[in-house]
Amino acid sequence: MNKPIIGILMGSDSDLKVMSEAAKVLEEFGVAFEITVCSAHRTPDRAHKYALTAASRGLKVIIASAGGAAHLAGSLAANTTLPIIGVPINWKLEGLDALLSTMQMPPGVPVATVGIDGAKNAGLLAVQILATSDKKLANKLTSYKKQMAAGVNAKAKKLKKEGYKKYLKNI
Amino acid sequence: MNKPIIGILMGSDSDLKVMSEAAKVLEEFGVAFEITVCSAHRTPDRAHKYALTAASRGLKVIIASAGGAAHLAGSLAANTTLPIIGVPINWKLEGLDALLSTMQMPPGVPVATVGIDGAKNAGLLAVQILATSDKKLANKLTSYKKQMAAGVNAKAKKLKKEGYKKYLKNI
Amino acid sequence: MNKPIIGILMGSDSDLKVMSEAAKVLEEFGVAFEITVCSAHRTPDRAHKYALTAASRGLKVIIASAGGAAHLAGSLAANTTLPIIGVPINWKLEGLDALLSTMQMPPGVPVATVGIDGAKNAGLLAVQILATSDKKLANKLTSYKKQMAAGVNAKAKKLKKEGYKKYLKNI
Amino acid sequence: MNKPIIGILMGSDSDLKVMSEAAKVLEEFGVAFEITVCSAHRTPDRAHKYALTAASRGLKVIIASAGGAAHLAGSLAANTTLPIIGVPINWKLEGLDALLSTMQMPPGVPVATVGIDGAKNAGLLAVQILATSDKKLANKLTSYKKQMAAGVNAKAKKLKKEGYKKYLKNI
Amino acid sequence: MNKPIIGILMGSDSDLKVMSEAAKVLEEFGVAFEITVCSAHRTPDRAHKYALTAASRGLKVIIASAGGAAHLAGSLAANTTLPIIGVPINWKLEGLDALLSTMQMPPGVPVATVGIDGAKNAGLLAVQILATSDKKLANKLTSYKKQMAAGVNAKAKKLKKEGYKKYLKNI
Amino acid sequence: MNKPIIGILMGSDSDLKVMSEAAKVLEEFGVAFEITVCSAHRTPDRAHKYALTAASRGLKVIIASAGGAAHLAGSLAANTTLPIIGVPINWKLEGLDALLSTMQMPPGVPVATVGIDGAKNAGLLAVQILATSDKKLANKLTSYKKQMAAGVNAKAKKLKKEGYKKYLKNI
Amino acid sequence: MNKPIIGILMGSDSDLKVMSEAAKVLEEFGVAFEITVCSAHRTPDRAHKYALTAASRGLKVIIASAGGAAHLAGSLAANTTLPIIGVPINWKLEGLDALLSTMQMPPGVPVATVGIDGAKNAGLLAVQILATSDKKLANKLTSYKKQMAAGVNAKAKKLKKEGYKKYLKNI
Amino acid sequence: MNKPIIGILMGSDSDLKVMSEAAKVLEEFGVAFEITVCSAHRTPDRAHKYALTAASRGLKVIIASAGGAAHLAGSLAANTTLPIIGVPINWKLEGLDALLSTMQMPPGVPVATVGIDGAKNAGLLAVQILATSDKKLANKLTSYKKQMAAGVNAKAKKLKKEGYKKYLKNI
Repeated sequence: MNKPIIGILMGSDSDLKVMSEAAKVLEEFGVAFEITVCSAHRTPDRAHKYALTAASRGLKVIIASAGGAAHLAGSLAANTTLPIIGVPINWKLEGLDALLSTMQMPPGVPVATVGIDGAKNAGLLAVQILATSDKKLANKLTSYKKQMAAGVNAKAKKLKKEGYKKYLKNI
Repeated sequence: MNKPIIGILMGSDSDLKVMSEAAKVLEEFGVAFEITVCSAHRTPDRAHKYALTAASRGLKVIIASAGGAAHLAGSLAANTTLPIIGVPINWKLEGLDALLSTMQMPPGVPVATVGIDGAKNAGLLAVQILATSDKKLANKLTSYKKQMAAGVNAKAKKLKKEGYKKYLKNI
Repeated sequence: MNKPIIGILMGSDSDLKVMSEAAKVLEEFGVAFEITVCSAHRTPDRAHKYALTAASRGLKVIIASAGGAAHLAGSLAANTTLPIIGVPINWKLEGLDALLSTMQMPPGVPVATVGIDGAKNAGLLAVQILATSDKKLANKLTSYKKQMAAGVNAKAKKLKKEGYKKYLKNI
Repeated sequence: MNKPIIGILMGSDSDLKVMSEAAKVLEEFGVAFEITVCSAHRTPDRAHKYALTAASRGLKVIIASAGGAAHLAGSLAANTTLPIIGVPINWKLEGLDALLSTMQMPPGVPVATVGIDGAKNAGLLAVQILATSDKKLANKLTSYKKQMAAGVNAKAKKLKKEGYKKYLKNI
Repeated sequence: MNKPIIGILMGSDSDLKVMSEAAKVLEEFGVAFEITVCSAHRTPDRAHKYALTAASRGLKVIIASAGGAAHLAGSLAANTTLPIIGVPINWKLEGLDALLSTMQMPPGVPVATVGIDGAKNAGLLAVQILATSDKKLANKLTSYKKQMAAGVNAKAKKLKKEGYKKYLKNI
Repeated sequence: MNKPIIGILMGSDSDLKVMSEAAKVLEEFGVAFEITVCSAHRTPDRAHKYALTAASRGLKVIIASAGGAAHLAGSLAANTTLPIIGVPINWKLEGLDALLSTMQMPPGVPVATVGIDGAKNAGLLAVQILATSDKKLANKLTSYKKQMAAGVNAKAKKLKKEGYKKYLKNI
Repeated sequence: MNKPIIGILMGSDSDLKVMSEAAKVLEEFGVAFEITVCSAHRTPDRAHKYALTAASRGLKVIIASAGGAAHLAGSLAANTTLPIIGVPINWKLEGLDALLSTMQMPPGVPVATVGIDGAKNAGLLAVQILATSDKKLANKLTSYKKQMAAGVNAKAKKLKKEGYKKYLKNI
Repeated sequence: MNKPIIGILMGSDSDLKVMSEAAKVLEEFGVAFEITVCSAHRTPDRAHKYALTAASRGLKVIIASAGGAAHLAGSLAANTTLPIIGVPINWKLEGLDALLSTMQMPPGVPVATVGIDGAKNAGLLAVQILATSDKKLANKLTSYKKQMAAGVNAKAKKLKKEGYKKYLKNI
């Protein structure tokens, strides 16, 4: 694989079940990435260094997931000017704590927050950011959007053909 | 001013008091932008066209603000592959409705959400995204971060010198 | 079946398990309807056209379901003056996000929101709306209300007869 | 004025400041209405009778507002098959209690809920319901929608002309 | 059994699993009660009459359970001056909707609300109310309190003897 | 005044502005009461003794108010079998913390909770409890209910006569 | 075992599954503790005495767990000046009620609250408090912190070596 | 002043109005402290160093305040084994975001959280922690508790003497 330009950091390896969706999106778009476990609270030094060296190591965007008092994305944002995408993980309180901990950043230090357990969208947002200067990726995103619509429309067709009662049996 | 590369859309002109902070950040970084009022619910056609033509008109990132059932950012994201930054506006329920309406997007259509009334961070995030392919902006961000730290440290020095009681009187 | 006068739109086919309750109510009242999958975010063009052509195609009321940042009902309401009934689907946060995204619409663009996963009530509300100009439907609604009361009263009778301990065993 | 076809019920006369917006909309559309104070908890008999006689008195739709444990809309819905539009009033807890009390109705008894303090939308929804069998009203709604869009677009033009700084001063 | 002095009303027979705890408490204290299903929304007339005739039929206290937009307790309180004990049932949103619908009553019409699914406490509260004029019941309550404390203390003793690891295995 | 049969305890004297409504209701019904400041956290011994001696001192019902981690009502309930009415005071978080701290009592120890800042209803509930064995009070409650309805109906009449626009000016 | 210096109190023995984590931490650090069941509401006298005698019996810190209207920690704090660590237990409402009941204490009576079901952190916080005057414990805490970081880093290494797909299969 | 043993860190100098209460408590108890502004997000390096050197500089306890995505307390806890007391500041959402960001820490890294804007309790908790190994401070805490009770009791006496109506006028 090429040199990674996206870093995926998980506050806990228990996030992987969710966060693998981000990895899969990046693979689908052919974007080189690295993925690791790194906790703002349990490995603060590594998190600190990761953020400080990220740009010089060639990373363009960092995706960070955490649950509870989800500080990982924010603590990375404190130490780099790269765009940080935060993924709040549902650990307690249906994910409300992680959501607020990730998103309610003070003026001056943004985190681009996606929905609770929104790993797929985190991956896509990273691709969208890269695509602002990569025409090829931008075209792939356009295709992706069309395929997504086609997928919904195919379901609509099937539903029309089968009727809702039959369709319901096969969900 | 140069041709805009950032678009700021407000769901209502009552958002301007908050959203002018995004505009100021972009001016501070010398990033050309346009700003307009455009409602997902009251001017859906214009919102639709805005998103569909944004990329071809040269925009790189769109910042969208809305309160309540805040659909503007999401409806733009549905019609373009540019990164969309959503700013939930506190209109009712302390902004909780806007926050959830902006952030909880379905898989496939991300919105990069910042905090409630987080216009300044929306501007900075837009700059960070541009900076992934603009070394000069990246350097400016680094300087900005240093100045921000210096500002806090100056306050710390003043607090130490004056003592908390005197400092408190002048807040 | 007759030409549909009610349209049921689901933001995702995973809503069908809930939304089939709306379809069943309409069948029970002999009201012709159509049901399809159509996402405000993944198939915005189709949603757009659906709303714009709904009245001319003979629809009188539209029922729309969505979870999370539930924009479907609102985006339809932006493009038609037909009454839109919104059904917030419980996907995350117990449905609180969908509830607020559906209901907190800005002045000028109403959505008639029913409870979380309230598909049955959405169907009944559509019938009530039609019944404002259809005496026959109004009479059916009156009968329905009586049957509903009779059902509760039958349970009350059974409970009285059996005693709560025996009744409890058969729940 | 003609014989009323819309009834506006307020749980308390302190709701009038909010609910007058519904009355104004109905006047704007030339829809005859009546407005009164009637509490589900303090005048249950009158509320009971109001609902039971509403249809025979010629009402087509009822709009009901209440704050706190907002039962008025639901208690009317229990006693009539007319469409009931519920307006949750912000009295305590930012209106969250009224919202949930109005909207979370059991299967069989729908209330068409609009947003917190959403009186204007309640009025418009009532007109939309009437318009399902009144072509003239439907046309007026279409005009209303266009004017609303024109209003937003005029603001957009003014903002473009003046620039955001000047515009901000005049808000 | 004697003539009932407590009435237990359930908004739905699905509440019985929870509400049987109230019945058991009343049996334990030898208090005669009746229990029935009666919905504020689906059988409003019966609920209405129940409240209006409760005092004359000899009831002293009414316990009412409901989920969602839980109006039963409030609608009874509107039609009688007997103390009404409300039990919010967890149906949606972890019971938060029922809790607020039951408790946030307007000035003038109180409902004595217990915790979510708090049927046992509803039964005890009813006994406490009766005990304000029934010395025998008051004494039974004192014994009950002692037994409850003894039960906790016995567990404490067992825990001390066994150690927490062994105790844990038998929970 | 006669020997008090109702005790009003406030966790803080800052509650008095709210709680005086309870006192006024009791005066209106001619029920003798005592009112004091007593904190579960700052004067636990006095709270303890108050509860332990309440019944022997002739009290029949205790009303307790507190904000935040509102333990006063619960701690009294732990030490007496008299009915305890809890009034959650809005101090922080719109009163949500006090509401949950007061209401979510464990099985075995009920608190009869009224709405946030619901002092008037606390007073009325206390009267309702006394009225279960005091025919005269029960009659007064019936009159009170009628007067309350009459008050609402008078407003309805005035609103009808004046029209909503004139009425609105005088609110 | 040595004379206990930490007391663990559980409001219910059903907390033990969670609270045993606190006990394990204390064992790991070689800190003598006692653990018991003691309810603020069901055994108020024992709770009262426990707090009043804790310091003289040699306890330095008390850890208290409770769910719902979680008063145990606060009621202990009212009767001793020892540091009280509160553990909100998830019983209802995802633990939000216990969290607010434990944490929102009035000025003058602090409770050191940890996260929902945060028994392990309660144990560690107790050790940290002891370590302010126990160099040996402080050193153990430093080692513990290093081991914790090492554990995360080992997972990071494994993830890097295996790749995320293989790692995911073994979670 | 003596060498500080308590450090008070504020994420923003706008916290000072609240946090000065902590400082005042420490002065009242004669505990030497230092107070500074230091942001986890804007001055991460200083926050990092502060935590790493705190113990060696003689600090025993750190009090940290922050609003929104309140990471300061948690980021300090990541880098020291001293007890960290977190004070959630009400900046947005009534302080709910800060509360959850401060309290919901992952297992292994505790933060002793006090209530929203609970600076006074943070100061007292710090004193309680020091008092676990300082008999003099422990005695002072006991006196403080007595004075606090005396203050409440004096108010109770005044209320009894004046009656609630007169007392109310002077609040």
